[in-house]
Amino acid sequence: MVFPKSPKSSVCSKCHAPAAVFLAYAPTHLCGHHFMEMFEKRFRKTIRELGLIKKNSTVALALSGGKDSTVLLHLLSDLQRSLPFKLVAITIDEGIANYRSKTLIVAKRECKKLRVPLRVVSFKKESGKKLDEILRADKSLLPCSVCGVFRRHLLNKSAKEAGANLLAIGHNLDDMAQTVLMNLMRNEPLRLVRFGEPLADDEKFVPRIRPLMRAPEKEVAIYAMLKGFKVTFTECPYAHSALRQEIRNHLNELEEKYPGTKIRIFNSFVTMDGWMRKGIGNGFAGQKFKRSHCKTCGEPSSAEECAYCGIISKL
Amino acid sequence: MVFPKSPKSSVCSKCHAPAAVFLAYAPTHLCGHHFMEMFEKRFRKTIRELGLIKKNSTVALALSGGKDSTVLLHLLSDLQRSLPFKLVAITIDEGIANYRSKTLIVAKRECKKLRVPLRVVSFKKESGKKLDEILRADKSLLPCSVCGVFRRHLLNKSAKEAGANLLAIGHNLDDMAQTVLMNLMRNEPLRLVRFGEPLADDEKFVPRIRPLMRAPEKEVAIYAMLKGFKVTFTECPYAHSALRQEIRNHLNELEEKYPGTKIRIFNSFVTMDGWMRKGIGNGFAGQKFKRSHCKTCGEPSSAEECAYCGIISKL
Repeated sequence: MVFPKSPKSSVCSKCHAPAAVFLAYAPTHLCGHHFMEMFEKRFRKTIRELGLIKKNSTVALALSGGKDSTVLLHLLSDLQRSLPFKLVAITIDEGIANYRSKTLIVAKRECKKLRVPLRVVSFKKESGKKLDEILRADKSLLPCSVCGVFRRHLLNKSAKEAGANLLAIGHNLDDMAQTVLMNLMRNEPLRLVRFGEPLADDEKFVPRIRPLMRAPEKEVAIYAMLKGFKVTFTECPYAHSALRQEIRNHLNELEEKYPGTKIRIFNSFVTMDGWMRKGIGNGFAGQKFKRSHCKTCGEPSSAEECAYCGIISKL
Repeated sequence: MVFPKSPKSSVCSKCHAPAAVFLAYAPTHLCGHHFMEMFEKRFRKTIRELGLIKKNSTVALALSGGKDSTVLLHLLSDLQRSLPFKLVAITIDEGIANYRSKTLIVAKRECKKLRVPLRVVSFKKESGKKLDEILRADKSLLPCSVCGVFRRHLLNKSAKEAGANLLAIGHNLDDMAQTVLMNLMRNEPLRLVRFGEPLADDEKFVPRIRPLMRAPEKEVAIYAMLKGFKVTFTECPYAHSALRQEIRNHLNELEEKYPGTKIRIFNSFVTMDGWMRKGIGNGFAGQKFKRSHCKTCGEPSSAEECAYCGIISKL
């Protein structure tokens, strides 16, 4: 069986072994071995071309235990053989019953296997309350908003504590393309420019890298499967953004009919991002993007008090 | 009956008369009178805020005879009462059997009614062949590509001949939002920046204005209906772009669920366009965007020979 659907009785374009994967956007058939080779090459090329990781960096990986971050853990661990850098993993335990506990097992097991030090940072320990408790206490809070604010804050803080100068995130190509469209549809163009990298340098902000940003989600899943990684595919019980779900479905339909749509959206964004950064840089940098720190916790914040401390103070 | 579907037994938010239209993105109900007032106000605001038409300009309107350009003809004609400018209309007759002949009747009738001078420019007279004949002669040509190249060329040329310094196009909000997404999905970001206005000034290029760019397609249709304009809703018999059709449907679905999506996409684009133009201007203006004219016809062209002359030479 070749995944996804493809012309019948096909063979790998590299070695003529039976094909395991069909890449419609290429279009090409690959056996399992050559698919994994292509996947790993693309990962290393992304790192190299964009200069994502420098020699002797310390990279903190945001490890949820899901397929994307687990695949990224293995790829980064492999990469250490050819590029000397330090790798640590951080798992945020939000305190979501019947969900995080499962992926925490994966995170701990995979880190132990690869001898990557793991820090588990819990909402409960940091703020006194689990996410479940926070949401029960204040029904007006939106789960994904609170969780996003807390996770971003704690990831940045613990990455710094771990001595990291880079924070690696498991975002794949689908996440990137969806985010481009979502920010367009919400009229938040500034977020679009910010999501490449922060517009203002700040020594308290650990820059994020997304080494899987050119890997379609489907391929990350196939890679995890072929490598035999035992990841859980449990979904977070809190409602996902309805808009993201909608856009995900539309994008998948468009990709099916016009293979390569996701990577073209992403490439458009990269080009436009370059122009926009230049335009913004000359326009209002220094005024709008001055460094600013939260008066309560001292972490980077665009307002006087950061969103994290804002929520904490009301708990 | 209120169009589109809306909460029952609703009244106009302005005068409490029975509502005729429900604007989900506002959200507000309007009677026919107040809907038309809103529609016309938005049109004048767009012209004013963006400085689209200056006093004593000569505006050539690309008039197909469909709903968008016919509505624009009436609005521009009305506008002449408060803003002195010259208005002429240009209809391109591509030579498409059982299609253009119908809209030509509308164009002629409405121009006569409003006393707007009309030029009919035909593919046949200009190039010796109707579109139908060109496509029959060379089966490899894509209808929309040939037609687009010819129409753009002839509109620009006849606008100049009519002494116009502006070319008004009936593009509505849906066209704009679709184009933003299409250019993203095709990885043609430069087209995106160009479609606001040309990146290089050229005395041979008549700048285009799109005064309906903030009017949703549905509202243009409702306005035409309420005003009693007798426009035809015939579709061009040549296959429309499959991708545009797809994107149109997705956008309509998203607009239904998240009212205001189209205008937010458009507003994002406007903001990003400003940043990109600044970035490009400082980056490679003067090199990539130097003025260039076709060696055959002398019209603006990014290549040595323009696409129009390229097709003509092969006929």
